[in-house]
Amino acid sequence: MTRLFNDPAAFADEALEGFAAAHRRWVRPVTGGVVRAAATPAGQVAVVIGGGSGHYPAFSGLVGRGLAHGAAVGNVFASPSAQQIRSVARAAHGGAGVLLMYGNYAGDVLHFGQAAERLAADGVEARTYAVADDISSAAPDESAERRGIAGDLPVFKAAAAAAEQGRSLDEVLRVAERAGARTRSFGIAFSGCTLPGSDHPLFTVPEARMAVGLGIHGEPGIGEEALPTADDAARLLVETLLKELPEDVAAPDGQRAAVVLNGLGSVKYEELFVVYRKVAELLGEAGVEIVDPEVGELVTSFDMAGVSLTLTWLDEGLEALWRAPADTPAYRKGALGTPEPEDDERAPAEDARDTAVPPASDASREAAGTVLAALDAVAGIVEAHVEELGRIDAVAGDGDHGIGMRRGSTAARSAAAEARERGAGAGTVLHRAADAWADRAGGTSGALWGTILRSLGTALGDRDAPAAPRVAEGVTEASAAVRRLGGAEVGDKTMVDVLVPFADALTAATAEGVPLTEAWDRAADAATDAAAATARLLPRKGRARPHAEKSLGTPDAGAHSLALITRAVHGALLNHH
Amino acid sequence: MTRLFNDPAAFADEALEGFAAAHRRWVRPVTGGVVRAAATPAGQVAVVIGGGSGHYPAFSGLVGRGLAHGAAVGNVFASPSAQQIRSVARAAHGGAGVLLMYGNYAGDVLHFGQAAERLAADGVEARTYAVADDISSAAPDESAERRGIAGDLPVFKAAAAAAEQGRSLDEVLRVAERAGARTRSFGIAFSGCTLPGSDHPLFTVPEARMAVGLGIHGEPGIGEEALPTADDAARLLVETLLKELPEDVAAPDGQRAAVVLNGLGSVKYEELFVVYRKVAELLGEAGVEIVDPEVGELVTSFDMAGVSLTLTWLDEGLEALWRAPADTPAYRKGALGTPEPEDDERAPAEDARDTAVPPASDASREAAGTVLAALDAVAGIVEAHVEELGRIDAVAGDGDHGIGMRRGSTAARSAAAEARERGAGAGTVLHRAADAWADRAGGTSGALWGTILRSLGTALGDRDAPAAPRVAEGVTEASAAVRRLGGAEVGDKTMVDVLVPFADALTAATAEGVPLTEAWDRAADAATDAAAATARLLPRKGRARPHAEKSLGTPDAGAHSLALITRAVHGALLNHH
Repeated sequence: MTRLFNDPAAFADEALEGFAAAHRRWVRPVTGGVVRAAATPAGQVAVVIGGGSGHYPAFSGLVGRGLAHGAAVGNVFASPSAQQIRSVARAAHGGAGVLLMYGNYAGDVLHFGQAAERLAADGVEARTYAVADDISSAAPDESAERRGIAGDLPVFKAAAAAAEQGRSLDEVLRVAERAGARTRSFGIAFSGCTLPGSDHPLFTVPEARMAVGLGIHGEPGIGEEALPTADDAARLLVETLLKELPEDVAAPDGQRAAVVLNGLGSVKYEELFVVYRKVAELLGEAGVEIVDPEVGELVTSFDMAGVSLTLTWLDEGLEALWRAPADTPAYRKGALGTPEPEDDERAPAEDARDTAVPPASDASREAAGTVLAALDAVAGIVEAHVEELGRIDAVAGDGDHGIGMRRGSTAARSAAAEARERGAGAGTVLHRAADAWADRAGGTSGALWGTILRSLGTALGDRDAPAAPRVAEGVTEASAAVRRLGGAEVGDKTMVDVLVPFADALTAATAEGVPLTEAWDRAADAATDAAAATARLLPRKGRARPHAEKSLGTPDAGAHSLALITRAVHGALLNHH
Repeated sequence: MTRLFNDPAAFADEALEGFAAAHRRWVRPVTGGVVRAAATPAGQVAVVIGGGSGHYPAFSGLVGRGLAHGAAVGNVFASPSAQQIRSVARAAHGGAGVLLMYGNYAGDVLHFGQAAERLAADGVEARTYAVADDISSAAPDESAERRGIAGDLPVFKAAAAAAEQGRSLDEVLRVAERAGARTRSFGIAFSGCTLPGSDHPLFTVPEARMAVGLGIHGEPGIGEEALPTADDAARLLVETLLKELPEDVAAPDGQRAAVVLNGLGSVKYEELFVVYRKVAELLGEAGVEIVDPEVGELVTSFDMAGVSLTLTWLDEGLEALWRAPADTPAYRKGALGTPEPEDDERAPAEDARDTAVPPASDASREAAGTVLAALDAVAGIVEAHVEELGRIDAVAGDGDHGIGMRRGSTAARSAAAEARERGAGAGTVLHRAADAWADRAGGTSGALWGTILRSLGTALGDRDAPAAPRVAEGVTEASAAVRRLGGAEVGDKTMVDVLVPFADALTAATAEGVPLTEAWDRAADAATDAAAATARLLPRKGRARPHAEKSLGTPDAGAHSLALITRAVHGALLNHH
């Protein structure tokens, strides 16, 4: 929902004022909207776009060299008035006429039409063009009734680039018509936006559902379906658009197309990229060559959750116009002169891990079986506690401890199994598990668990059967390495609070000659007690957890998971011996 | 919430793949992340940035000329592993060393630190720098413990621009340190994000509240307050940052600063502009000169609702680096060579309405009082039905009919009152009201109501006392103009369905010699009946309302408001005579 405003009635005006203040290099405010900072060159057709507020970067964000000469900016979701449009057009006029461009909505059609008439009366030659790209909004035989959505961008750009080339008003209009006729969009939505000052959303979509073809102001769609996967969403978008090719395009194969994957506001960039991955694949399979794709927020609807796909089927002329440089507040292309050389070669994988394993003794290979069983138990206990670990971590951290531990322990188990299958000893199995954990888990816990497993592996090696004291030695080394790396000591409310007493207890018991499984049992008890004790501590001040008081009464997530793991490993040792 | 994904565990990898596919001109994928499409020039220090996924354009979107040479991309909200970082750094290395830069989080500090060690072992000279700009995350005397948020951008950019100038690794590190020491951010948040595959948000903020200093992964903030106005939010951000100047800055007055107003994901552009308007004003009052401000989404947290303000206090060297060109997927600056000339002059207002009014007869001036009373009644009845009109419109339209009618009728009343105060006759009062309505309301209804009032005003003029038949004539002309402009006829389920019978009934009654007030009463009855009848009609197919079936049983919003208004105007006529 829209939360930041002053008087809701002043929202659009204040937004325009702030926009202009932030973008003085590109635009200057005039009554009714903005025009380019520099005057339109004499003899150049001016392209003036416009529409309601709430769709940024449409429309003001698209004013600048290579794109619009001016934008008339209406109130929230309302067409600018004819008077506003006329004012902007007169300020943008370079003596060669004005093309007024806008999305095909009843209000815009009325006001831009009236503006064109008034401009003619003022002695300014004006033409109008309404973009009508949303194929869900009317059938093909009524395509003139379709709404304009993200197809605005390629159609505006084609016309503006043609104007920049010095073409006449009628030629620029013909370019707009050709680009419009070859531009199709289709969209899906998951939730609506709440306008400034309103206490309820403009429209809603049921939880876990998707509205197909819903308009960007909540105009009804053509159906409702279950929430798709990203790949299925991509398939729906691509297949629908490939069903309605422009009249002069016989088949997609061999065609070139500008592609715009547009987020409506709260479908965010990474989601768009996941969808685009499949869109690119499917278009490639259909034989379509993608030209200068745009994946981002080009026409929004406040924080509406939705996404649309636009294809502009290019001919040679349209392609040159689409690729032409532009420099506007929200759309810049062809920066720094020449494009960088393309180079699609993937750099050789730096971590192509040598899959061969070093030689190992039979004893160490047998011990590797125990190690694998232990890692199995680790992955199992983490899986069982993912949610709990996340919850605990969320008290003072970012709540991802459970997820990270799952990724790491699962990867470690796989890597260990692979190494063991190749005949690795205990040391190598632990080293491979260490690398996999650190590599896949990321985050703090990934680095620290990688270090723990690596220290243990180094202590065990691939030759000797791992005696209990050797295991204790490895754990002690792990403890020292974790303190060094993490910069924490006992009492800082971190995993160190558990790792140190665990290592101490294990060392003490093995020094007494207690066999490993039993010694581990005692040490695991010490670990459990220590983890419980961390709940009473104030956390170490520091990065990402500076708020001591909040976590009083909650154990540290890393300490808690370590204690759980020591206990689980004891179970594996019991079973395996 | 994050809705578009396939296997949540594959989200970050698939997003990176789609990102790279969409941005081949700028980047190429390597193991662990991306590097620039073109190789780092030999002898140039490589700046390698990185961090978890979910923060786009941080970090991959900032790779390209003038900015980073590579980005290591971790899993969702998790640091990339040392192995990933090492792989990206080796691919980006141009033989002159690597500066690793990242936000100051425990996991990143660990992994980037380990990567630097491994790179040294590989023979690649490496340094690290952690951005720590979030002043809410630790006290000034513990500033090294602070988290890194949107200050990443100016600090990365300063270092990268220095590298581009050919400076040595140690010099580039010193630039990073200087930029970091002069960069401060402060943020507020309204709601958390839901990670891909999770069924609940990572964190929440109570409805209508604001968390102050909340971290971008939900790390606890330093307080909670009521939701502020945009201006108050701006004031909190600016005042907090002005309280903690860098050591070598005595006072803000006379300083120059780079300003980044960053949206976290679902605080959208127009809201950011409204906030920026006040930020710029307050910084100006404090004597700070803003240099190349950025207002948009630079470091996000999926669709988290929040905003942060970053100031980098510039010296001459830092200013040149901040203004240097850059060309990356998400950050482009200095496009097309030379900047456009600045030109702050506001174009002369095109609609500076002549406030003088034409001469009018006493009779017409008296009638103007009745017109004003009627417009008062119109604004009143619209105000009382704003919500209802919005609801009706939302069935087949975009739900803004009530808001638009309110804006228009309020503006019309004010303009009419002003004109009457200056002694205008009925015709001029209606013309001024017509212009104000169309200009302020925008949208379809704005254009149509502007036309209705204008037709009436022309019929009444400023000379004669408006006889009842003349009023009927004006309404009939209005009806014809609306049909012409809107392209609708009776039966299309628009306001025409009400306007035509209203005009007919008024004409018939006045032709019979019925006095105006009574004739209007009869006509208003006809209008009310007609509005009710529109509920049974299928709407006209057309722009923004192509979905016939949905609105069966609901009247047309424009027809309904017209009927309400005719009835209210009758009340005003009764009272005024």
